[in-house]
Amino acid sequence: MAPWLTDWRGRYTGRAAALVSPANTREVAEIVRWAARHRTAIVPQGGNSGMVAGATPDGSGNQIILSLRRMDKILAFDTDNGLVHCQAGVILQNLHEAASAKGRRFPLTLGGKGSATIGGLVSTNAGGTQVLRHGTMRQLVAGIEAVLPDGSIYDGLSPLKKDNRGYDLKHLLIGGEGTIGIVTSAIVQTVPALVDRCVVWVGVNSPDDAYRLLLFMQTQAREKLEGFEILPQRALNAVIKHISGTRAPLETEHRWHVLMELVQDDPSQTAPATLATNLLEQAIEAALIQNATLASSEAQAEAFWKIRDSIAEAERAEGPALQHDISVPVAAMSRFIIEESPVIEREWPGTKTVAFGHLGDGNIHFHVKAPPDVDTAHWYATDGKAITSHIYDRVLAYAGSLSAEHGIGQAKIAEFARLTDPTRLSALKAIKNAFDPLGIMNPGKLVPLA
Amino acid sequence: MAPWLTDWRGRYTGRAAALVSPANTREVAEIVRWAARHRTAIVPQGGNSGMVAGATPDGSGNQIILSLRRMDKILAFDTDNGLVHCQAGVILQNLHEAASAKGRRFPLTLGGKGSATIGGLVSTNAGGTQVLRHGTMRQLVAGIEAVLPDGSIYDGLSPLKKDNRGYDLKHLLIGGEGTIGIVTSAIVQTVPALVDRCVVWVGVNSPDDAYRLLLFMQTQAREKLEGFEILPQRALNAVIKHISGTRAPLETEHRWHVLMELVQDDPSQTAPATLATNLLEQAIEAALIQNATLASSEAQAEAFWKIRDSIAEAERAEGPALQHDISVPVAAMSRFIIEESPVIEREWPGTKTVAFGHLGDGNIHFHVKAPPDVDTAHWYATDGKAITSHIYDRVLAYAGSLSAEHGIGQAKIAEFARLTDPTRLSALKAIKNAFDPLGIMNPGKLVPLA
Repeated sequence: MAPWLTDWRGRYTGRAAALVSPANTREVAEIVRWAARHRTAIVPQGGNSGMVAGATPDGSGNQIILSLRRMDKILAFDTDNGLVHCQAGVILQNLHEAASAKGRRFPLTLGGKGSATIGGLVSTNAGGTQVLRHGTMRQLVAGIEAVLPDGSIYDGLSPLKKDNRGYDLKHLLIGGEGTIGIVTSAIVQTVPALVDRCVVWVGVNSPDDAYRLLLFMQTQAREKLEGFEILPQRALNAVIKHISGTRAPLETEHRWHVLMELVQDDPSQTAPATLATNLLEQAIEAALIQNATLASSEAQAEAFWKIRDSIAEAERAEGPALQHDISVPVAAMSRFIIEESPVIEREWPGTKTVAFGHLGDGNIHFHVKAPPDVDTAHWYATDGKAITSHIYDRVLAYAGSLSAEHGIGQAKIAEFARLTDPTRLSALKAIKNAFDPLGIMNPGKLVPLA
Repeated sequence: MAPWLTDWRGRYTGRAAALVSPANTREVAEIVRWAARHRTAIVPQGGNSGMVAGATPDGSGNQIILSLRRMDKILAFDTDNGLVHCQAGVILQNLHEAASAKGRRFPLTLGGKGSATIGGLVSTNAGGTQVLRHGTMRQLVAGIEAVLPDGSIYDGLSPLKKDNRGYDLKHLLIGGEGTIGIVTSAIVQTVPALVDRCVVWVGVNSPDDAYRLLLFMQTQAREKLEGFEILPQRALNAVIKHISGTRAPLETEHRWHVLMELVQDDPSQTAPATLATNLLEQAIEAALIQNATLASSEAQAEAFWKIRDSIAEAERAEGPALQHDISVPVAAMSRFIIEESPVIEREWPGTKTVAFGHLGDGNIHFHVKAPPDVDTAHWYATDGKAITSHIYDRVLAYAGSLSAEHGIGQAKIAEFARLTDPTRLSALKAIKNAFDPLGIMNPGKLVPLA
C-alpha cells in the first residue's frame, strides 16, 4: 500500500486498515454503507497528486483508503454539445486525448495531468494555467454523481443549463475534498479545438507593468487571451540552471517576465500572431513592456510553456523553500508582490522570495527560500512556520485566500482554522455535520471541526 | 402594506405582522437577531416580481416582510475589472444604466428589469434571454454578503477569481430564495459594451430544425451568438393580435420561428450583419430554415425583441392558461416539444399548448391554454392540476427540471416534494436545518420540510 500512504509532495505519510478499489458507483455505495455501519473513516483518493495531503490517511491505521483509479472509463461523449461523461478515475491526460480525437478540447490543464483524475480535480476545484478564459473545474462541470456519507447515490448527472431546484448540490461537492461525499462520475464541458495559438514571452519592469499589460490585453484581445503568467528573472534563472534543454526566450534580462497565450477559435478571426504583433507594438510604444518575442513554431511554444511548468521543479533543486498558493483580488496582486516580498526578506535575513504564476487570476505561488546552510527541518519548524503565518496574515489583510487552487486538505487546516472568521467557519461546520454526522467522510480534511 | 402582500402574478396573497425596510446590512442583521430571539419568521422581499410567490408571506399574519428596496445604492464600480458592488435593492434597470455610463454592460436581462432587484435576482438565480453566452446570475456574481439566520454577517465580498477555502457558500446563497440567509449586497461582473449587434428573425419548419440551426450557429458563430429563442406561429399570432404596434417580421407564415442575436465585441471582428447574412445563406441552402430577415435598424431590433418579450402578456389576453418553466438537456428539448404537446392536446380535448423560450438553454415556457368556455377556477383546480402534474412527470422522464429559472417558492413546493428523489430532498433539508434550525428564514419556500 506504500504509494497510497504518502502524499505527492512527500510531506505526509499515514497508515491505513485497507485499500479498496471499487469498479463502479454501486460498489462505492456498498463500501460507504459498510463504513457507516462500522463507523470507519474513508479517505477517497484519485491520482494522489494533490498538494495539501487531502487524500492521505491519518496515522491511526484505522482509516480505509478508497481509490477511484479503477473507475477510469469515459462513459459517453455527446459531440454535438461537447459533453463528456467521465468516471471519477479518468486521468486528465486521457480526457484531453479523447476530446482531441473528436475535434474538441478540455481546456483545464496543469502539471500533474498525467496522474490527476477527474474525481480529484472536481473534488479540489482544480485550476491551472488556462483559468483566465475557461475558469476552474467549477465552471466546467455540467453534471455530477456522488455517493453521500449514508451510502445513498446522488444523481446530478443531467446536464441542465438551467435548474433552480433548491440549493446547488453540485457546487457544494465541487471543492468539497471528499468530506461530504465521494464524486463517482462527472459530465464535463469541452470546447471546440483551437485553430491556432500564439505563445508570447515578454520582459517587463515590474508586476505593476505586468498588471497594466494584462488590462491592456484583456481590453484588446478579450476572450482570445487564454493565459497570462508572471515570473521573476530569479525563477527563469533557476529553470535554465536546473532543467536541461531550456534556454531564455529573450536575449535581454528583465526584472519580470510574462508568458501569454493568444488563441484563434475559428478561421475567420485574425491570426493570433498578427494580433499579438500588433498589440505588442503598441505596448512597446507605450513603454508598458521592454521586449517581447513570439514563439515561431509549436515546438517553441511548448518550450516557452515548459519553462513556466518547470519552475516548481527548478525551485526544488535550488534548495528548501516554503510554498504558498495564495490569491488576492486581481487588482491588488502586483501591490502584494511589490510590498510584501521585501518585508519578508528583511525580517528573515537570508531568505529569498519568488512569486510566480497566474497573475490574470490574482493567484500566485509565493515561495520563500530558506537561507543558505540552515538546518532545513529546524528552519521549517521555526522560522518557516512563522513566515507562513505572516504571509497568510498579509493575504487576509488584502481580503485574499490562503488557498487559491490547491485546497485545504490537512496541510492548511490549522492555519485555515486560525484565520477564518467565525461566521464562515460555523457555516462550514454546519454543512459538514449535516451531511456527515458520523464523521466518516475524509475526517480531518478541509473543515476544522475542533 | 397591500402591494407587498400579493405576488406579482396575483395568485397568492398573505398577511404580515409588519413590514420592515432597513437602510443597511447592520440593520438587517439587527432585525434578524430580533426575529431569532422572538422566533418570528422573516420573508425577504426585493422587487416583488418573482414568478413563484417566493417573497409572499403566508396567511398567518405572524410573519414579517423584510423589504430590501431602500438598500438601492451602487457602492463601488471598479472599471478596470468591470466589477460593480450593488446593495440588494438596486433595480436591474439601474444597474444596466450605471454600467452603460461606464462603457460596460451587465448582460443579464429579463422582462421585469424595471422592478427586479439584484438581491432577488441573486436569490432566485435569475436567467433571462442572454443566458446562452453569459450564463445565469450564478455565473455573474463575483462576491456576496448576506445576513445568516442567527444574525451574523457573512462577508464573501472579496472578488477572488480562485478561492478554495471550503464549501462554496456563495453558490449556496445564490438560488437559496432567502431560506438560509438574506443577501444584502453582491459584487457582479460586467462585460464590455457591444460594438454592434444583429437581431435576426427566422422561419423554420420544426423545433428539430431549430435545434439543428442552434448547433450550426454555435459551431460557426461561437461566443458571438448571444440569444436563441423559439416560438410557434400561434404565439406570434397572439402577440400581433393583442399587443399594439407589433407586426410579423416575415411576410411568410411558418410553423416555428427563431429569434437570434449575434453580437460584435470589438471593431476588428466581422460585422454581425455580415456574419448573419453569410450563415443564413448557408442555412437556407441546406434547407435548415425557410426564410429569414435581419433587423435593419436598432428600432427594428427592439421591435423583434418586443415580440418575444410580449408573449406572456399576449397569451394572458388569449385566455386562461397554465404556465410551466421547465428545462431538459438542450439536445432533448425539441423532442420534448414535438412528442409531448400532441399527447396533452389529445388527453385533455380543447386545450392548446404553446411552447416558447430559450431553446439554447434547454429551457422553455410551456403553456397550456384552457379549453374555451370552461369555468376557469374549477378547471385550474381539476384538469389544470392534473395537466401540470403530467407535464412535470414527463419532464422528469427526460431528466429535466420543473423549475428552470423561476425557482420553487411556494407555488411549486408541493410538486417539487412529490417529484424529488429522497437523496436530493434529504440533502436539501439537512442544509436548511443546519443553517436555520429555528425555521425563521422564509419558511415554507424552496425546501419541502414536511
